[in-house]
Parts: sequence; structure tokens; C-alpha cells
Amino acid sequence: MGKRNLYLNTTPVEEAKERYLKWIGEDLAKNREQELIPVTESLGRITAEAVYAGCSSPLFNAAAMDGIAVISKHTAGASESTPVTLKEKEDYLIVDTGDPVYPPYDAVIMAEDLLEKGESEVQILAAAPAWQHIRPIGEDIVAGEMLLCSYHKIRPIDIGVLLSGGIVKVKVLKRPKVGILPTGTEIVEPDQKAGEGNILESNSRMFEAMVTEGGGLPMRHSIVEDDYEKIKEAILELLKQNDMVLVNAGSSAGTEDYTVHILREIGEVLIHGAAIKPGKPVILAKVNKKPVIGLPGYPVSAYIDFVNFVEPVMGLYTGERHRENQRVQAVLSKRLVSSLKHREYVRVKVGRVGEKLVAAPLARGAGAAMSLVRADGFCVIEQNSEGFEAGETVDVDLYRSREEIDHTLVCIGSHDLILDLLADMLPNRFHGSFLSSTHVGSMGGLMALKRGEAHFAPIHLLDEETGIYNTAYLKRLFAGKEMALIKGVRRIQGIMVQKGNPQNIQGIEDLKRVRYINRQRGAGTRVLLDYKLGRLGIKPDEIDGYETEAATHMAVAALVKSGSVDAGMGILSAARSLELDFIPVGEEEYDFALSPSTLELKEMKEFLEILTGDEFKTSVEKIGGYDCTESGKVIFVH
Amino acid sequence: MGKRNLYLNTTPVEEAKERYLKWIGEDLAKNREQELIPVTESLGRITAEAVYAGCSSPLFNAAAMDGIAVISKHTAGASESTPVTLKEKEDYLIVDTGDPVYPPYDAVIMAEDLLEKGESEVQILAAAPAWQHIRPIGEDIVAGEMLLCSYHKIRPIDIGVLLSGGIVKVKVLKRPKVGILPTGTEIVEPDQKAGEGNILESNSRMFEAMVTEGGGLPMRHSIVEDDYEKIKEAILELLKQNDMVLVNAGSSAGTEDYTVHILREIGEVLIHGAAIKPGKPVILAKVNKKPVIGLPGYPVSAYIDFVNFVEPVMGLYTGERHRENQRVQAVLSKRLVSSLKHREYVRVKVGRVGEKLVAAPLARGAGAAMSLVRADGFCVIEQNSEGFEAGETVDVDLYRSREEIDHTLVCIGSHDLILDLLADMLPNRFHGSFLSSTHVGSMGGLMALKRGEAHFAPIHLLDEETGIYNTAYLKRLFAGKEMALIKGVRRIQGIMVQKGNPQNIQGIEDLKRVRYINRQRGAGTRVLLDYKLGRLGIKPDEIDGYETEAATHMAVAALVKSGSVDAGMGILSAARSLELDFIPVGEEEYDFALSPSTLELKEMKEFLEILTGDEFKTSVEKIGGYDCTESGKVIFVH
Repeated sequence: MGKRNLYLNTTPVEEAKERYLKWIGEDLAKNREQELIPVTESLGRITAEAVYAGCSSPLFNAAAMDGIAVISKHTAGASESTPVTLKEKEDYLIVDTGDPVYPPYDAVIMAEDLLEKGESEVQILAAAPAWQHIRPIGEDIVAGEMLLCSYHKIRPIDIGVLLSGGIVKVKVLKRPKVGILPTGTEIVEPDQKAGEGNILESNSRMFEAMVTEGGGLPMRHSIVEDDYEKIKEAILELLKQNDMVLVNAGSSAGTEDYTVHILREIGEVLIHGAAIKPGKPVILAKVNKKPVIGLPGYPVSAYIDFVNFVEPVMGLYTGERHRENQRVQAVLSKRLVSSLKHREYVRVKVGRVGEKLVAAPLARGAGAAMSLVRADGFCVIEQNSEGFEAGETVDVDLYRSREEIDHTLVCIGSHDLILDLLADMLPNRFHGSFLSSTHVGSMGGLMALKRGEAHFAPIHLLDEETGIYNTAYLKRLFAGKEMALIKGVRRIQGIMVQKGNPQNIQGIEDLKRVRYINRQRGAGTRVLLDYKLGRLGIKPDEIDGYETEAATHMAVAALVKSGSVDAGMGILSAARSLELDFIPVGEEEYDFALSPSTLELKEMKEFLEILTGDEFKTSVEKIGGYDCTESGKVIFVH
Repeated sequence: MGKRNLYLNTTPVEEAKERYLKWIGEDLAKNREQELIPVTESLGRITAEAVYAGCSSPLFNAAAMDGIAVISKHTAGASESTPVTLKEKEDYLIVDTGDPVYPPYDAVIMAEDLLEKGESEVQILAAAPAWQHIRPIGEDIVAGEMLLCSYHKIRPIDIGVLLSGGIVKVKVLKRPKVGILPTGTEIVEPDQKAGEGNILESNSRMFEAMVTEGGGLPMRHSIVEDDYEKIKEAILELLKQNDMVLVNAGSSAGTEDYTVHILREIGEVLIHGAAIKPGKPVILAKVNKKPVIGLPGYPVSAYIDFVNFVEPVMGLYTGERHRENQRVQAVLSKRLVSSLKHREYVRVKVGRVGEKLVAAPLARGAGAAMSLVRADGFCVIEQNSEGFEAGETVDVDLYRSREEIDHTLVCIGSHDLILDLLADMLPNRFHGSFLSSTHVGSMGGLMALKRGEAHFAPIHLLDEETGIYNTAYLKRLFAGKEMALIKGVRRIQGIMVQKGNPQNIQGIEDLKRVRYINRQRGAGTRVLLDYKLGRLGIKPDEIDGYETEAATHMAVAALVKSGSVDAGMGILSAARSLELDFIPVGEEEYDFALSPSTLELKEMKEFLEILTGDEFKTSVEKIGGYDCTESGKVIFVH
């Protein structure tokens, strides 16, 4: 107890899954539970056995037209030259569509084809063959025929057919009850005040939602601290009321990772560690014949292990085997290297630029939950593959709809808070259109644009020689090709410092005496700093922290706010949003670079309409630090 | 009132939809309602506005490794030749993964890289650069950054990120409340006893489920008879409590179709009739600024109009525009002709045979709800198209998963109840495998097999010359090609008559004096009848009803049962399932024809395993009338 575990195994994913499913499936198959529920409440449930029709539909031979029901034999020989006269009640009955037609009547003649002769006589000019204009009994459903087979997921149309077939109750598989146990001394409920070193508990809530989506009933336990006995007790308690239990986290091999020891004490552990990244420290166990799965604490690892191991186990109960991700083919935007030690799941953003789908890999860290939110799907690199080259076509499992992706503007480049605003205004104003942005700095954006991976690139790049923003870089990088530049905003760049400016920083020269955090190479803000340093004759190595990089204005602001560093450069809006002090060092132009042909795109036109609209200006002015005078103006650069 | 309506318009579908959405959308956009709900209950809901992070994640700079937190400057110069000694509390603190690291500490050194010197001293052999092994504050989420944009459908991972970002409540769009009004004097609730001429009410329950799936809240009214004032009253009552109302049926232009008149009296009707098949008689109206839609009574028409008109209107409330059908390309198995008067939705069965997806059109009648259940998707023939030739590649909107289709055996041919049994046993025994069967008679099945549209064809074809079943036909139709035949069952064919045999039918010759119902050309049962008639020297026109056809054994049984005819030929099991009397006329062999290579298919092997198993034999014996001695034996035919 409490001791460091032995090294984890790294069983290949499919092997681990197959072995585990087989191991627990044998017990499960014997105990799969069923319940009888009203058909009207059966949407999405899985049939436990075949369902046979209790009655036919239609229940009787029915008129398919308004007119008269006749005895076909009595109409024999009727023609234009030899009309036949029929008598009501003797030869015919008046019927409306849907009315029953009983023997000896066996055909219907439409009202339009009748010549009225008297009060209760009609004349016809054509014979009626038997069954003309009659929907025969059982045309749709015959009593006794199989309506649905076993393991069928009930859809709205199935509900209609069951009821039409006289079935009002249906036997379905019981939903699996899944107990969820969040553990950890450092974690607290999100609605409580988080103290120093605390982590807001969110994984269990994600699991709840995933269990619900997978057709199960989640039951979440309250948080249990890192205590062997307390965790054991909670697992046993959850097992009493549930079909399976998930334990999160403590699944790894650290000093306080108790889960595997507990499960070995109260049950059996089949697998500890799978060859999957993220998600290696997974535990696949069985206690009292019920599956118990230990999931890692990092949200992305937990998510991927849930999809790979928990969902198939739930499928043993629900009868659903496959997660229905849509698989598409996309061109990879940059090289992806992976180890032969594991199968790797790389989050990708997918965009349709021109005719091709482009997959741009996102952050690969297991802690980066936001990258899962921003991603559109996974590129899976199998264990036997060392990865893919840029430009290769790869399979991507989407978890955003293809329709949505087809109507999404792909924006790659420098980040500004107004991008968030625009990303929000677009679907709000133009239902069904979306903007997705990836933040890699100005130069990174132009490179993506050049490779045809983005619709447009937000940039703020100062030409050190001319002092002119953006156009100079466009000319240089896209020599010989006409490019367009949509003017964005003028914005104030400056130094962000802690509230009250405790180090009394007044300008760039003061950075020599404090701890600084820089932006990555190619970021417009770094270009600006270099320009300013050059003018002042300051060398980079005179700045403590010049080599330390953060990826966005907001990341810099967060580090300043936390006191990890004293100063960082960024935009006024970032400083304001975290309530930092701000020393302006200059104004710059933040614009959108694109190919002129992209201006024709429906979503791009909508984007421009928003950029020139009053709502955008009002919102940007509310943030402060921006000048929108030229927003939306398009200039062309040769 | 009560009078026949004028002819319906037939507005093109897209025009009708766009005009209607615009007409009601303007009122709606102003009144779109929102509500604030707990994040933990927000799965599947749509954000009403952008959501920004309330706090960063991590909330602090955190150790990414077990080891010590150090002040990076104090480690400067350390190397193998010049180790540096660090003192606890002065130079370092012990940390575990996830522990906070506060200034002046700014880097972490892994436990593995430390040389213990004394109680509170360690030696290091390498300098630690600032931020080494630290997850900086806000690495995942920075306070103030946009987590989700407007109109985003909340997924499990979003719930995790919202909570990690300190958000516990989220503003979402209210679910639209949809009132559903079933009308009709002839319809009754499915749990009540259906009398003569009654129809079981099922459409409203299908609508309930479709509303739920589309993110709305259904409210179903009890059935209202065909009475102008009562229907009007019910619509007004539902409008008080709902955002929109669906009226079913009475949407056409018949004498008792009141809906359009009522809606003209209490509101405005924009569209009555759209160029769509099935689904023409749709009513798009507005009452008190709320949408009211009249839907036709035939289930398939109602379903298609719901998808085309109701779902987009619900989307105005829910923020979801598109139904997420998966679109695939498939080879059409037979010619489809459609009129330029409308867009037509043709139900198709989709199967993967070899490398190609094959789409086989099903019944096109609007009343055939079972064909919607059996179908895998729709082939849409646009209004400007006259249809497609057999063999053309067409788009199919699937509503069954591609995964499921890929693991489905496609069986086309003659129907027997044991096929239903097998279709049920396959997924039951082999999770994830399915059998889908289409009933077109024996010859139809062999033709489909020849065109490569089926995996196997169930047949019972008697060679009139040799008296041998099945092999003779295979040799003739697949001359020069080796074929396989899996032996199925021997079964008894006979004449089905009403209970008690009121016409005292003893054999084929007695058919001359009663009303008969025949099977379609190419059906094995018809071949058998012709064989028997030939031997007895009876001419087809001596049989009353020889020219009238039904498509399956069960359809024949249902017509005999209802008294519409006196006799029909079929198998014992069909007679038994509807409690009919049965006069045997002979035994026949019902086998499965296929190409030998298909035997290699995983699902085919599973099928064979079931066919030779005890469970199958027991179930078949329970039905009666079968001999399973040879079931599963494979023979090859050259």
C-alpha cells in the first residue's frame, strides 16, 4: 500500500480490449437483463428479442379512393359502347378512402369514373378487375411477421410500426448502470471555492455525459480523498448498485496511486497499462464478476481510454458495439511522428479549403482538454506506424459533423480576442456558418495560408525597414501572386505587468531588470519587441526570460497575473481581461491575409459583413484598446 | 366546411421550405428563448451565447513530474564535472506531480536525476532551465478565453472543459415545445380494441419520438374526431402551451379534410401542397405568429414531410439546421423512373456485396410503413430528374450506420418464416452481424444474385422436367460458373383455407370452384402450382383469381383469413401463424444459392454455424412443417 507500483505493462490496445471483453463477457452474457416497457417510451432502446406483429395493417381491405365498392364480376363487359348499370346495395356501396370493403365487394371504382343514372343507380364504361383501388389487408404488415429483430435500436419509425402492428409493450435490454468514482485529495467540486493547489473536478461529469450518450445510466459518487480504505469502501458501495464501476484517477504507478492495489485485493486485474497515447495508465479489472475500470486523471487520456475500453464494455450490456464516428480522408498539414511503442490519438482540426479536407494536428499533451474541444476529430496512428509525412492523406475519425466542417472558415495565425468575438457572431448572425481559429502566430499563419490549409491568416507583422505593417511580408512571401488583405483593427501593444506595477516599469528599457516572458518565434509581438530592442541597442541576452516562450497573449497575461514572471508583451485587451496594468509601447495593425478568390466564399462574405457592421464595432469598443476605422476594407497586394 | 378543397398547389420543396422559414423565422428570431441550466445537465443542449472561462486551468504553475522544485538560477553551471549542491528550503522543495510551484521556484528536476547528498541536500549534474517540467498556469485554459461559441451543441468533453474553466451554469436555448394533434373519426389508440374499419393511431407517437430526437419537447393531444369545431378548439388549446403545432391528418383536399379551412379561419396558410412524393398534401401555416403544420396521414408521407418541413422549423428554435444523415454512393440495382412534377424519396435497402454498395429500391407506396423500417436509407430523385438507370451510381442518405451495413448479409429471394428466425438469431449469437432479407420470389432472388446485388438467394424452384429442386435452375442460369447451394429445409406446400375448410377443398382440382389468390410470376409456389395444374390438365383460366397476385406466403394467408378469397397456396408455417386450415399438396426444398467465394465471408460462416446448430433445429421444429435433416449441407453445382 502506498508503495510505488511496478512498471506498467503496455499491452497493445486491440489485444487488451479483446482479452478484457472476452474475460468479462462470459459472465455478462449469462446475466444480461431485460425489461418490458411501453413502446411509446422505447426511443433509442435496444430490443432484447425479435418482435412479431400482433395484428395486420391495414386491418381490413380498404378503399384506396373515394367512389363505390363493387363486385368485380358484375362489371364484366362494361365499355364505352356497352355501358353497364349498377344498382346501389345490390351491385355497389358508396365508400370514401380508407373505408373497409368486405366480400362480396372486391374492387373500387373512382367517383370520377361514374355516370349518375338515378337516385341509386350509376353507369360505368369500363370493367373493374378484382382488387382495383383496394389496399388489401396486411399490405403493410401481416399479423405474425417479424417487425424488428433482436439487438435493434428503436427509431421513431419503428415506434410507429410497432403500434400499427398492435404492439404496445416491447422487451428491451436494461440500461447498464455505471458507477463513477472521482478520487483525489487535491480535487474539489467546481461549485466550491478552489484553494491553493486545488483542481476542479470535471472528469466524472464528462464520464456521466459519455455514459448517457452510450445508453447507460450514470451514478456519480462524491469525491473521495487519496485514502486506501476509503476508496476501497466507495468502490464496493458503488458495485452493489451498479453493473460496472469507473475509478478516476490513481490508475498510474505513483506513490499515491492506490487503485490497482485495491482492485487486486478485492478482485482481479487483467491489464494495467495499454500501448496507447494518451491513455497508457488504464486498469482493466473485475470485482464480483463486474467490470471495474481505472481511468487516468488527465482529461484527454481519460476520454480516449473511455472510448477505447469503457464504451465496448457498455456495448456488452446495450448491444451496441460501435461508436459511430464518421471517418473521412484528409490531407495532413504537418509531419506527425509517433513511436512504435503505442497507438497514438492525435487531435486534429479539420477544414475544407478549396476542394480538399485538411487535418491540422493540435497540441498533443494529455492535459490539454481545450484541444479536445477545439479539435474536430482524431488522426489515429497505429502502433505499427511511425507516423505520416506532411501532405499524406490520412484517415480522420470526425466527431463534428461533416456539414458543419464544410461551412467553417479556417483561420490560422495570430490570436486576438476579437477573433473569439467574430467566431461567436458568425453562427449567431448567419445560422449554420462557423469560424474556427488556430493560434500559431502571424508567420505560422502565413505559412499555413501558403500551404493551402487556411482560408485566411490573421497577422500583425512589422517590416523593420519600412515600419509598414503586413503588406511587406505578404509581398515577400507570396512573390508573383496577387494577395488580398482585409483590414482588421489597429490595436495597442504594450507591456503587461501586475496590478499596481510593483516593479515600476515604464518602457522597453526597464525589461532588462525584471523576469520577462517572451512569445514564440514568428509571433508579431516578438517581431515588435525585436524591433524596439534593436532601436534601443539592447541585446536579447540582456533580457532575463527572452528565451522562454508562451503561445498567446492570454498565456502571457496568465503568467504575469500568477507572479511567475514580472512582465510580458501583449495587447491591451488581454491585460484588461485579467485585470493587469499595461504600459503602451505602440500601435499596430492586425489584419487578415487571404487569397483574393477566397473573398468569393459565402462564409467569407458573411465574415466581411460582420466586420463592417455596427454590432462588431460596438462590441470591440466595449473591450477597449482598438480602432475599427478601417475594419473590413479590402486591399490587394501584388 | 366539409366541402372538397380546390386543387392543391405543388410548390417545389426547397421553395416551399425557404419561403416558410423566412415567413415564420422573422417572428421567431425576435422571441428565441433562453434558459440558464447547470452544466452537469447540459449534454446535447445548444449554447445561447458564447461562454468564457471563469478561471484558468491549471489554476497554478504545477509540477509535471515527481521530484524537486528549484530556482533555475541556482542550478546554473551544473554539469557532470561541476556538480552543484542544493539545500532544501533554501534552493529546493520536494514536489509530487500536480503540486503547485510558486515563485521564486521556477523549474522542476525529476527525482531520477538527483544524487542524494545528505538529509536535506541533493547534488545535480545538469542545470535546469526556467519552466522545465512545469505545467504553467493557464496551459490548458486561460481565464477569460472563449470556451464555446454561440449555437454550439454541448458534448461530454465540453462539460469537462466548462467545469475546469470554473463555469457551473450555462445559458442555452430553450427546447421548443411541439404540440401534436392526431385527428380522425376512424382512428383509435393502439391499446384499445380496434373495431371494424378502425385504424390504430401511430403517427403521433412517431412524431413524439422525432421531436425528441430533434431536441424538442413533444406534447401529444388525445385523438380528436373529424369535427371542424373540435379540431379548431384543440389546435387553439395546443397553441397556448406550445411553440408550434402539428396536425395529423386531414391535410389533403378531401371532403372531410378540415385542417386547411380551420387554419385559414384562425390564421394564415402559406403553402398547401408541395412537389414531393410521398408527402404532397402538406400544409404550412401560421397562427398567432406560431408555426402550424398539417401533415398527411400515410406514415411514409408523414415521415418525409416531417424531415423536410418540421425539422427545419424546429431548427429555428434549437439552432440546429441539418439532419445528420450519412450520405454514401451506391450502385442502383434497378431502374428508377420519377416524374418532373416532384422530388421523390425512394426507400432503398443498402448492402455491401463484394467491394460495392448496392441500393435496392423498396415499395414506393405511401402506406408501406414497414418499407421504412426495412429500408436503410433514401435515394432522392430531384424534381428536375426523370430518374436513374440500373447500374448508375446514386447518392443515398443512410439512416442506418455504415458499420452495420458493412456487417449485414444481403439476402434476396423467396420468403420463409425461418428467414425471420435466422435474421434474429444472427445478431443474437454473433454480436454486430446482421441479416437483411428482401422478398421478391425465387427467380427474382437468382437475378439479384446474378447482378451481384445479394450475398445469397433463398429459392425453391422445381424443374418441371426432372422433378428436381433448385440445382437445375442454378445450372441453367449460371451456365459455365460454379455455384454453391446451402441446403435449407424441406417444407410442406399446400392450400390455405379458412378454418373449418367451409368450401371442403381437398386438392388442386377443387380450386376451379372457389376464389383463388395466386403468387407473382417467378415465385416458387406459383411454379409448383403450374406444375400441378399441368399434370392435372387444368388450364390457368379455369382458376378464378389466377391473374391476381400477392407477394408473400403471409400476404396470401392474410387474404384468406379475411375472407377476401377462399384459397391460396403457401407453406404450412404461414397457415399456422394465422390459424388457417391447410391441405398439403407436396414437399419441396427451400435452399440458399450463392457464389462459392461468398462462403468465405465471416458473416456467412456465422450464418452456416447457426443453420447447423441445435437452437435453429429446435425453433424450426416448434413452428412445424419443416424437415431440417440436411440444413447447412453445402453442395456445389457446375
